[in-house]
Amino acid sequence: MRTLVKNGLIVTMDAKQTILKNGCILFEDDTITYIGQQTFNNEVDRVIDVKGNIIMPGLINTHGHSPMVLLRGIGDDLPLQTWLEQKMWPIERKFKEEHIYLGAQLAIIEMLRSGTTAYLDMYIFMDVVAEAVKKLGIRASLTRGIIGYGSNDEKEQKLKEAMSFAKRWNHQADGRITTMMSPHSAYTCSPDYIKEIVSAAKEIEVPIHIHMSETATEVEENRQNYGVRPVEHLYKLGVFDSQALVAHAVHVNTEEIGILKDKGVKISHNPGSNLKLGSGIAPIPEMLEKGITVSLGTDGAASNNNLDLYEEMRLAATLHKGVQQDPTVIPAEAALQMATINGAKGLFIDQHVGSLEVGKKADFIVMDRQQAHFHPLYNPISQLVYTASSADVLDVFINGQQVVKNKEILTADEEKIIYEVKRLAEQWR
Amino acid sequence: MRTLVKNGLIVTMDAKQTILKNGCILFEDDTITYIGQQTFNNEVDRVIDVKGNIIMPGLINTHGHSPMVLLRGIGDDLPLQTWLEQKMWPIERKFKEEHIYLGAQLAIIEMLRSGTTAYLDMYIFMDVVAEAVKKLGIRASLTRGIIGYGSNDEKEQKLKEAMSFAKRWNHQADGRITTMMSPHSAYTCSPDYIKEIVSAAKEIEVPIHIHMSETATEVEENRQNYGVRPVEHLYKLGVFDSQALVAHAVHVNTEEIGILKDKGVKISHNPGSNLKLGSGIAPIPEMLEKGITVSLGTDGAASNNNLDLYEEMRLAATLHKGVQQDPTVIPAEAALQMATINGAKGLFIDQHVGSLEVGKKADFIVMDRQQAHFHPLYNPISQLVYTASSADVLDVFINGQQVVKNKEILTADEEKIIYEVKRLAEQWR
Repeated sequence: MRTLVKNGLIVTMDAKQTILKNGCILFEDDTITYIGQQTFNNEVDRVIDVKGNIIMPGLINTHGHSPMVLLRGIGDDLPLQTWLEQKMWPIERKFKEEHIYLGAQLAIIEMLRSGTTAYLDMYIFMDVVAEAVKKLGIRASLTRGIIGYGSNDEKEQKLKEAMSFAKRWNHQADGRITTMMSPHSAYTCSPDYIKEIVSAAKEIEVPIHIHMSETATEVEENRQNYGVRPVEHLYKLGVFDSQALVAHAVHVNTEEIGILKDKGVKISHNPGSNLKLGSGIAPIPEMLEKGITVSLGTDGAASNNNLDLYEEMRLAATLHKGVQQDPTVIPAEAALQMATINGAKGLFIDQHVGSLEVGKKADFIVMDRQQAHFHPLYNPISQLVYTASSADVLDVFINGQQVVKNKEILTADEEKIIYEVKRLAEQWR
Repeated sequence: MRTLVKNGLIVTMDAKQTILKNGCILFEDDTITYIGQQTFNNEVDRVIDVKGNIIMPGLINTHGHSPMVLLRGIGDDLPLQTWLEQKMWPIERKFKEEHIYLGAQLAIIEMLRSGTTAYLDMYIFMDVVAEAVKKLGIRASLTRGIIGYGSNDEKEQKLKEAMSFAKRWNHQADGRITTMMSPHSAYTCSPDYIKEIVSAAKEIEVPIHIHMSETATEVEENRQNYGVRPVEHLYKLGVFDSQALVAHAVHVNTEEIGILKDKGVKISHNPGSNLKLGSGIAPIPEMLEKGITVSLGTDGAASNNNLDLYEEMRLAATLHKGVQQDPTVIPAEAALQMATINGAKGLFIDQHVGSLEVGKKADFIVMDRQQAHFHPLYNPISQLVYTASSADVLDVFINGQQVVKNKEILTADEEKIIYEVKRLAEQWR
């Protein structure tokens, strides 16, 4: 099927950062075949007129734990350990497969409605998460997070489960799903266990995703336990020899940034979560200057407390200006890259998505620019980064399929899912 | 007229931070006469059923320059002086009364739709700003900003104009408008001129509003020019002897915070603008600890780039946690106070608004809690601060009058105003 989306102000995020006024996108099934200002008449099967609104690549969320949306707002404003041990874990222990399926759906609905077209999910019971991804039409990189606690048998079992999941679901759902392997972190997995997971990832040819240097305490404990800081530790364990995406990297020094750059490690910057949990502020300007690919993540909704990548993009663009007292740091264009093409690179799917170009998949969103706060409009990229919000997202297309139409989810019964979440939450309050 | 608003989850922000499930608010003309869980039958003239949605005090924006919305997105990511001298001032010089009227209306529409029920506006051509406030139904503290450049005659003229405006409009528009006197700052007004303005404010019994210690450069230059930092400078000029609201206070040390506390000075924290312009991060936790009344401001949309107080509230709640690496700093309740009751104190109108209590004015908003991102809902205050967005604002009431209904402005023709702004902006690009 050939679809024409016309009358758009198209922000392509291609290498030249092309912006087209009165532009159109033509796509055939899932693939973009034309972007430009040509007129098409009777040669297409479907025409969608976006009436001057903005068309841009969907946003890409490179770190999260979708089912934790069920814990949203439980135990805010607490020290990290209290929050984890007294608030998160007691409820997480009660999680069953049906809860994960429900939570993943709720989270995906929130992400789709806020303009996210691809995301990374690291959690447990990942088969049902994959089912939710398949059903709701989002693109995802899925990985069974491995916490190295328990007996050797249990650890063996977790590793096997993660591998078999990664193999089974890689390239499924019309190619929308890819997979990774995830040792949770250096503080929850022993060095030997991390090595095993790395070697498993190499064997099945999938990237590694891991939390790293999120808090100052973690770095200090790593130094005490292993004599080195987390970057050197993971480097020695071979984590960076494969394709690797690291979440947080808040407490990294210049030498460590050098190592990450040399090894081509991708970073997922999660400013909202890092601020709210009091973890600190990552040295992102230095990473970008060195040429590291930095993308954006929301983290789980229990530590954010939403899954709104527009917020993360604005934070990324403004936070570091304030910290460095320099308004030229991370300009709007760089922030929008972080949320789009760099996200695609972070998930190792940039040959398919992250920008609007012929040959790439039709993953794009339409932003309403008719409201008071969108005027005047001098510079679309500035407006998207500094002014717009996720509530301006009208339509979402992924792999050529429309999944959100005029702010309504087409692939799920939002009301029914909310009803079930409300019923479930009653038990946990 | 007696209006009953029923079936609300009411977040009152009274001294006990009362939250009422299935609550109702009764108001007669502009004044709240009952809040609680009683049932009313045929004793009211109008019944509004909010169907379980959240009712809360409207947000209060304590620093801004509404007509600068016309400069939104011009010259982002530039050093402060370049931005001001090459981008802002050349266009501002072209501003005529009709532009100010248009810009103020656009800004007020944006504020109303995002849940702001009262705001401060410091600019020029304030008569037409007051007309816009009167027409659109918002509550406002208005002040003619005085920049002390020009001849003595010009300065005398500005002062007279500011005084006559402040006298003429104070308590107008059914009491929705109050006024202040504003020397722009210590770096744009000579000490003598500031003294004159202060004495004028005393004479007509209105508070003072001023920019202070926004950037490190400003503090250093003040020290070079006058031998002291801005706080001591303004203290000596008597600025803090009247009621005073100070915007920014980014670069203030512990001693200065002590002076501000002793003199009862109110602070308007503008985190979004301070980050975006690279000004720095104000020591808000220390101010709150000392008992200073800190409220929130957006600043002008040219340096933000929107007028969304929900964003400022979330920033206030999370930014300082990250900077201090302490998640217990500025909990959700404190952030919501900053955006509501502290805002009312900052504008010296807390006897009338800022919380929902019998005897206060009916200034409140209704938040849609039926969407995916609002679930589960364990704690309404946490949800409002960490999860919600201005796009969740459904209805807005000010002085008992409904000004926004299901996201539509009732007091202005939004489409027409946007059309005129677009036409005007065409000339300036």
